[in-house]
Amino acid sequence: MSTTSYKRTVDSNLKARALAVIPGGMYGHQSTARLPASYPQFFERAEGCRLWDCDGNEYIDFMCSFGPILLGHHHPGVDRAAAAQQAAGDCMTGPSARVVELAELMTDMVTHADWAMFQKNGTDATTTCVTLARAETQKRKVLVARGAYHGSAPWCTPTPAGVTPEDRAHLITYNYNDLASVEAAADQASDDLAGIVVSAFKHDVLVDQELPDPAFAAGVRNLCDRTGAALILDDVRAGLRLHLGGSWETVGVRPDLSAWSKAIANGYALGAVLGSDRFRDAATRVFTTGSFWCGSVSMAAAIAVMNELNRSDGIKTMKAAGERLRAGLASQSAAHGFSIRQTGPPQMPMVLFDDDPHQRLGSRWTDEALQRGVYLHPWHNMFLSTAHTDDDIDAALERTDEAFAAVARTGER
Amino acid sequence: MSTTSYKRTVDSNLKARALAVIPGGMYGHQSTARLPASYPQFFERAEGCRLWDCDGNEYIDFMCSFGPILLGHHHPGVDRAAAAQQAAGDCMTGPSARVVELAELMTDMVTHADWAMFQKNGTDATTTCVTLARAETQKRKVLVARGAYHGSAPWCTPTPAGVTPEDRAHLITYNYNDLASVEAAADQASDDLAGIVVSAFKHDVLVDQELPDPAFAAGVRNLCDRTGAALILDDVRAGLRLHLGGSWETVGVRPDLSAWSKAIANGYALGAVLGSDRFRDAATRVFTTGSFWCGSVSMAAAIAVMNELNRSDGIKTMKAAGERLRAGLASQSAAHGFSIRQTGPPQMPMVLFDDDPHQRLGSRWTDEALQRGVYLHPWHNMFLSTAHTDDDIDAALERTDEAFAAVARTGER
Repeated sequence: MSTTSYKRTVDSNLKARALAVIPGGMYGHQSTARLPASYPQFFERAEGCRLWDCDGNEYIDFMCSFGPILLGHHHPGVDRAAAAQQAAGDCMTGPSARVVELAELMTDMVTHADWAMFQKNGTDATTTCVTLARAETQKRKVLVARGAYHGSAPWCTPTPAGVTPEDRAHLITYNYNDLASVEAAADQASDDLAGIVVSAFKHDVLVDQELPDPAFAAGVRNLCDRTGAALILDDVRAGLRLHLGGSWETVGVRPDLSAWSKAIANGYALGAVLGSDRFRDAATRVFTTGSFWCGSVSMAAAIAVMNELNRSDGIKTMKAAGERLRAGLASQSAAHGFSIRQTGPPQMPMVLFDDDPHQRLGSRWTDEALQRGVYLHPWHNMFLSTAHTDDDIDAALERTDEAFAAVARTGER
Repeated sequence: MSTTSYKRTVDSNLKARALAVIPGGMYGHQSTARLPASYPQFFERAEGCRLWDCDGNEYIDFMCSFGPILLGHHHPGVDRAAAAQQAAGDCMTGPSARVVELAELMTDMVTHADWAMFQKNGTDATTTCVTLARAETQKRKVLVARGAYHGSAPWCTPTPAGVTPEDRAHLITYNYNDLASVEAAADQASDDLAGIVVSAFKHDVLVDQELPDPAFAAGVRNLCDRTGAALILDDVRAGLRLHLGGSWETVGVRPDLSAWSKAIANGYALGAVLGSDRFRDAATRVFTTGSFWCGSVSMAAAIAVMNELNRSDGIKTMKAAGERLRAGLASQSAAHGFSIRQTGPPQMPMVLFDDDPHQRLGSRWTDEALQRGVYLHPWHNMFLSTAHTDDDIDAALERTDEAFAAVARTGER
C-alpha cells in the first residue's frame, strides 16, 4: 500500500496546483467535487475499457468519458483513420471531402435525416436544433422535460448562476413520459409553439432512468404534426448506443431534427444536427459556425466509427455486456442484502440503492469499487463500450462483489 | 489547362453531392457561397502556409483557416506533442495533467489572468465570459460594439433567423473607439450593467479595421472600475497574434475576463476563458461544460504552441511577414492605378478597394490571385502565420501583381 500512498500524492499535488489556476480545481461534469474523495481527478492514459490515473492506478471504466468512448480507447480502425486525416489536414481554410462523406453516411443511416451539419459540442447541436425550429416555424415556445439535461448554455444549463430570466423566457416544461403534461404545456404555448425537445430516454441525474413509453412518443409526434412544431430528439447522450437509425427508432417514432455528439467519433470532438427536408431552408438561413467545425480529423474518425458499428453490430455487443453486468449486480446486491434499482438500457446503466436519498450507500459502494479498480458513478448513468469483454465484466463483478461485502460490513459510514 | 479543367470537376462533384446532404452545400464562415465561384469549397491537404484543394491546386494561404493556424500546418513540435498525448489518452473520464500545466502557462503569460477554463469554440468562451460577468455582478446588461462578431449562438449570431428578441434583451450597442457612445450605453444600462465586451481591435467584416484607441481603452477600463462592470476582452480572433500577454497589452489596459480560441492550439480545437480573482467564485458557480472540454490532445498542442511562440518571438515574425506583404501590395496597387486601404495590424490584414462598396473590384482581384495560387479574402480580415517566409510572401506578391494587372485590363466585369 506504500506505493498507492506515494502515488496518491501525485493526484493530490495536481489537485492543489489546479486549485490555484482553475476555479474550484476543475469545472463541469468531469469535476470530482461531488464524488467521494478517493476519486482521482486526473488521468494519465487509457486503453480499451481501461483507464490509468496519474498515480498509476488502473480502472475498468464504466463511464467511457461520460459517453464519447464507444469502441474503447485507441480503437485501431478509428485512430488509423484519424491519423491519416491528420497527416493530410485537419483544420484547413474549408472542409475536406470527409464532411460530404460523413453527411452522406449519416443521412443514409439515420431514418429521419435528409441533411446534416456538424459542430463541436452537444450543446452546439441542441442549441442549433432549437434555433432551426424557431427559424422554420417563426414561433418561439419550446417544450423541455423537467430535469432533462440538454447542455450548458444559458438557455439550458441546470445551474442558475449567470442566467437571466430572458434566457428561458420561451421554455415551458413537461414531465417525461407524461403525454398529458406535454399537451398542457402545448396549450400554454398556444399558437406560438416552435418545438418539443425530447431526450432519447429519461437519463436525468440522481433518479431512475425511464425508457420512452411508445404511446408517449407517438403522442408527442402527433402533437407536432397537428401544430407544426418541430419534434427535436436530443440524442447527444444515447446516440449510436441504442439504434443506429436514431434512438427513437426503438419506439417507431421519427423526429424532425436530432442532436448528436459524444459517441459519434469515439472521443474525437464532434457534434451533429440531422434534419428533415422541411427544415433544410431554415438551416441555410440560420448562421451558426465555429472555428473548428470543419476540422476533418473528427469527421474521419466518425466515418470509421459508423462503419465499424455497421460491420460488427456493436450495439448488440454493448447491450450484452450491459446485461451481463446488470445480472451480476442484481444477484450480488441481493446476496449481500441490498435492494438496488438498475434502470435504463443495459448499455447505459444507472444503479441506485433503495432508501438512499442522498446516495450515501451508493457512494460508499462505488468508492469501495473504485479502490478495487472499478470506476463506477453513484448518481449519473454509466456507459458500456464494445471494448468491455465478458472477461472485463467478470473481472469488474468480482470486485463489485467485494465492494458490496465491504459496504455490508461497515454501512454508510 | 485540361488537367485543371478535369480537376475542377472534383470540387464541382463534391459541391453537388454536398448540396444534397448539407443545407446550402456548406454552412458557416467556411462556406464559399458569398465568394467568387472559382473559390474551392473542399481541401485535400495543408502544409506550412500552403493548401491544396480537392482538384490538386496549390495555394499560398492567407486565411490560415480563418485564424487557427498560427505556426503553419503540421508544425513539427506541435504535432509531436499532440501525437504523444493522443497515444496516451485524449478524451478520458477526466482531464490529464495537461489542463493544469496549460492553465499555469496561460495565467503566467497573460497579465490579467489568475485562473483559466477551457472549452471547444470561441463562442463557448465569449458566452462563458458574459455568463460569469452576470453571475459575479448580479446584473444583466452587456454592452457590445455595433457590428462586432462575438460568435454564433443566438445571443450573438449576426443573422436574425431563429433568434428571439429575448435572446438579446440585455444587449446594448456602442460604437468601437467611441467612448462617448460607451458612456451613453452604460447610462442606458443604469445600475444594471454587468459587463462591456470589447474586441481586441475592430475587425468587422466588409469595413476597414481599427486598432483600439488607447484613450478609448483606458476610458472603458475606467468606466468598468467605476460601475463594477466586467471588462471582457474578446481575444478569440486576435489572441497570440498581437501580444502574448493579451491583445490589450498593446494599449496598456487589462480586462477582467478574456475569451480565447482559434490560434491557441494551432488548429486543434480549443477555447479558453481567463479571468481575474474577482471572478473566480462566479466561475465555480456557473455550470458550463462539454463532452470534449477535458480532451488533452488540444491542450498538449496549446502548450507546445505557447512554448514555441515564447522561444521564437513568433509575433515579430508574423508582423514582419505582414509588413512585407503590405508594402508590396501598396506599391503594386499604386503602380496599377488602384487605390486600396490596408488596415489593422499587419499580421491580420484587411485589404479593401476605394470606391468599391460591393467588393466587386476586391472580388475580381482576389479571384485573379486565387487562379494564380494565392488564397486571399475580399471582405474578411486575413491572417499571417510564422510559416509565411519572405520567399512565400515574395512568391505571393509576384502573383498579386499579375492579379492587379489582370483587373486593370478588364475592370470589374
